[in-house]
Formats: sequence, C-alpha cells, structure tokens
Amino acid sequence: MSNRAESVLVGLIGEGVTPSLTPPMHEREADVQGLRFLYRPIDLLELALPAAAVGDLLLAARQLGFNGLNITHPCKQLVLDHLHEISDDARRLGAVNTVLIRDGRFIGHNTDFSGFGSAFAAGLPGAALDRVVQLGAGGAGSAVAYALLTAGVKALDLVDMDPARCAERAAELAGLFPGATVTARTTAELPQLMPLADGLVHCTPVGMAAHPGLPLDIALVEPRHWVADIVYRPIETELVRGARVKGCRVLDGGRMAVGQAADAFRLFTGRDADPDRMRAHFLELVDAEESSAEDALATVGR
Amino acid sequence: MSNRAESVLVGLIGEGVTPSLTPPMHEREADVQGLRFLYRPIDLLELALPAAAVGDLLLAARQLGFNGLNITHPCKQLVLDHLHEISDDARRLGAVNTVLIRDGRFIGHNTDFSGFGSAFAAGLPGAALDRVVQLGAGGAGSAVAYALLTAGVKALDLVDMDPARCAERAAELAGLFPGATVTARTTAELPQLMPLADGLVHCTPVGMAAHPGLPLDIALVEPRHWVADIVYRPIETELVRGARVKGCRVLDGGRMAVGQAADAFRLFTGRDADPDRMRAHFLELVDAEESSAEDALATVGR
Repeated sequence: MSNRAESVLVGLIGEGVTPSLTPPMHEREADVQGLRFLYRPIDLLELALPAAAVGDLLLAARQLGFNGLNITHPCKQLVLDHLHEISDDARRLGAVNTVLIRDGRFIGHNTDFSGFGSAFAAGLPGAALDRVVQLGAGGAGSAVAYALLTAGVKALDLVDMDPARCAERAAELAGLFPGATVTARTTAELPQLMPLADGLVHCTPVGMAAHPGLPLDIALVEPRHWVADIVYRPIETELVRGARVKGCRVLDGGRMAVGQAADAFRLFTGRDADPDRMRAHFLELVDAEESSAEDALATVGR
Repeated sequence: MSNRAESVLVGLIGEGVTPSLTPPMHEREADVQGLRFLYRPIDLLELALPAAAVGDLLLAARQLGFNGLNITHPCKQLVLDHLHEISDDARRLGAVNTVLIRDGRFIGHNTDFSGFGSAFAAGLPGAALDRVVQLGAGGAGSAVAYALLTAGVKALDLVDMDPARCAERAAELAGLFPGATVTARTTAELPQLMPLADGLVHCTPVGMAAHPGLPLDIALVEPRHWVADIVYRPIETELVRGARVKGCRVLDGGRMAVGQAADAFRLFTGRDADPDRMRAHFLELVDAEESSAEDALATVGR
C-alpha cells in the first residue's frame, strides 16, 4: 500500500559532522537503487551537546522512527553503554560506528574496520602482509590495525606521537591477535623499520587540508612498499602523490571512506551498495567540495 | 553538491497514527515532484507516551533534523505552549496541526481549517452560505466551523451531543466572527433547522467503519441542500450515499483530508501539491485499505 516498510531514515551523530560526505554518499546510492532514503547529520557542536548525549540521541532517534545511525568522534566508545547487542568485532575493537534500530533494540557494528578491510582487499590485492608499519593509533588507527591483523598481517609496528596510547593499543591488539606481533614504536625508529616493512599505512591527520605535509620522510618509502592512506580530503595527499611518483601501489583514503559507507549501507538497507558507483559519487562530491573551496579562495584573493 | 538542502523530513505526532494515510499521501506527491522526502508516523500509543510528551518530541525532532511535523489528536491544543510563533488563524482557532521547524524555531499553522476551506471552495463552488447546520463541535468540527465562517456563512447552527461543549464553541466562534450568528443547538431541533438551512456539514465519527450509520434522519435532507462530510473511511459514508441519491451536491470527507495534506505539503516543502493528483493517490490508498480489510474479513469468514 505505502512505501513505508521500504523507507530508510538514518543519521550521523558526532562533532562537526555537518559537512560530512557520508550522508550524500548514502543518499545517492539509495536513489540509484530506488529506495526512499534520508540521511541527516546530527552535529553535537551545532546542537551544543556533549558527547555523553549520544545515549539520549539514540532514544530520540528510536522514538522518531530512525532505522539506524552512524556514530563518529567523539562517541564511538561512549555509545557502547547504550546498546542491546554488539557484533563480536565491534566488541573486540571497543568501538561502534554503526547502530541499527531493530524492534526497538540498538545493535552495534563497526564498519570502519570492515570497510578498510574490504577496500584493502579490493584495492591492494595480493599485498604482502608479513610486516607492516602503521602511523597513528587513534580511533581510526585502531580500526585499521584490527582490519590489518584480521587480514593476516604477521608483524605490525605501531607508531604514534603519544607513546602511552601507542603502548596501550599495541598491548590490546596483541591480546586480540595472539598469533601476530604488535609492537609500539616511535617515529625515531622509522628509518630502521621501513626497510623491514612490506607496506605502510597512514592513520594520522597529517595531509588533510588543515594539516598539510607528509607524515614521514618520503625518502623512507621505497617502490616495493605498498602505501595506504586514510586521509581523503584531499584524495591526493602529499603521501599518496609521493608514493605514486615512486611507483608504489597505493590505496587512497577515499577507499576506506567508501568501504565503511558501503558496509553501513548494507546494514541499514539490507541491500548491497555498488562500491564502484559509490566511489564515483564520492569522488564527485570531493571534487565539488575542492572546487568550491578554490572558488572561495579566489573570491578572497580579489 | 548534495541534495541536503532539498530533502524534507517530516513526522506526524498523535495517538494511533501508525496507519494514517497522510504520510504515504505526502510521500507520493513528493516522489512525483522529485523531492527527497520522508514522513514518519510518531505514534504516542505505540511509544506509550502521554499527550504532554509533544513538547519533548518537538525538541527531539529539531535535534534530529526534522523540517516539520503534523500534529493530531490529542496534541493540537497542547502543542501551543511549545511554539515560538503561531499563524493568526491557528491562534484564533486555538489549535495547531502543522509545525514548521525553521532556524531552530517552531512555527504553528492550522491546515485543517484551510484544507477544508479550499476543498469546500473547489468542490462546492457557489454553494449558498446564508444558513448552515453543522453536526459535531469537537476539534475537527471547530476547524470546519472556522473555515465556514471564514468562507462567509452568515448563520451557523451548531449541534453536538455535549451541550456544554456546544455552547462554549458557539460562543467562541461568535466572538471571532461578530458579523455572523453562531447558535448552539440540539439534535431535537434538527427538524426545525434543516428546512431553513442551505447546507449541512457533518463532523462527528458516525459513518466511520467503526461507527456505521447516519448522523441524522436522512428524511431531513432535501435535494436543494448541499452536504459536506468529513468522514473518509469509507469515502462513501451512508450520509454521502443518501445525499447523492437525493440529488444533493456532495463533498466527501476525502476532500478535507487531501486539502489539509496539500496545504501542509506546501508549508513543509515550499511547493504546491497538485490536489487532483493527491486526491487520486488518496483514493488508491483508501481502496487498498478497504480491499485488505475485506480480505481480512473473508479470511476470518472461511
């Protein structure tokens, strides 16, 4: 009779999410699939709400007919206390970025890790996994490290500016993957570590428009290394560009962004997203954003 | 860049609204117009919430990115306390069925009255308005009486089972329309009143599937009367059928249902709804509902 059973209402809870590309990425994929789908950013900064409000927002979303929510910084851990059910991986990882609302129950998943995993498998097939250097052990870094170890990395060298956080994460991951070696390292060790590594994964903010630059001395990157970046604004970070110039196989940050969205889309809608189509939409969105940023700069320059 | 500015999220707050036809009516019109539009019923009975929760639900809807809400029984008066702005007509009528959320502010309107008014003007053009009998002085009846008096009815005879409510409403309306005469009457007076009336408006639940029957002795209806019913489940009530058989000009209850929805759609989206198309959708929805009810009865009968 109506399309109500087929319609999907989703939100994204986090700080500064208003300009996120995730809502339009989902909406466009749903349009192509003929779904009634609407995705609202729920920005804690705009609402002047603390991160701890995530529980109340979940309850409100349930009352108002939401089918699910993506959760991002700074709520991915806080949200755990408000769930009825958590996927095994999300529980082990200690972070949830996707909550389904089903029959009044909140069910947590983590598509940061699964999205990176599927993007990595698709974008760098057959990559050697004996030893990997990862820069950045924050929230996104934890999900990526979890995905790498799940994919079969044998030795992971984890580097972070914060030695205490780095040691803590390394110990957690080592506990979860007893067959692998996970070691907390410092940037000072990179000249010794990179020659031993098959690949490099970058999970810090360096290279973002607001934090331009390289996260390590590019001279340490060799053509035989594969390089994965998770920064995607811009898509072509200095690291991605430098690695490509050297002839490395490269996975840009858009792949993880699309991977997490595609996995969340499947959870929210029960339908597969076409990752290539979603990637094409995503690149259009990033392009449009960069053009309008350039326009703004050009206007300022006049 | 994205469709976010163009997308519209709306809800309907009230008791027992889950099967309401208003959400699919809006959604289908939006589909034809190419809008991203999603309309969720927010059923106080299913949520086990009291009517007084309407204020909290408004705040939650604002946080979660709703653009507006329809409000129905039993919240149309209660919602007044939570608004920043109220249209003149809604304020005079003391009831709001449509709330817009604009720049964080709640703005109340009443499309029950305006929807009946436009349906009446379109469906019974040139109807004589010197004297009208109206059955039913509840919430919907108040909006209809307000619309009739706005349309130029000179003398309104208001009949209700509850004499106190009837007298109160008549006094309120007389105060709002000093140029008109509004008189509280009883059903016993109908044999004297109908011969004096140009038309009859019916605003009680009699004739609904759950309350079958006629709201007055059909012998009192003359071919020269116009007859407007606001019951629309079924569309063809006993009153509508009886009046049609006599040759009366008739306005069925679907007209008001579509009129209020079309007016709310324009407020929510800033775009005109096509009332004929919306009416066609509405009749399809009612048909589908009646067929499935018959199917259910047939199944029970086996």
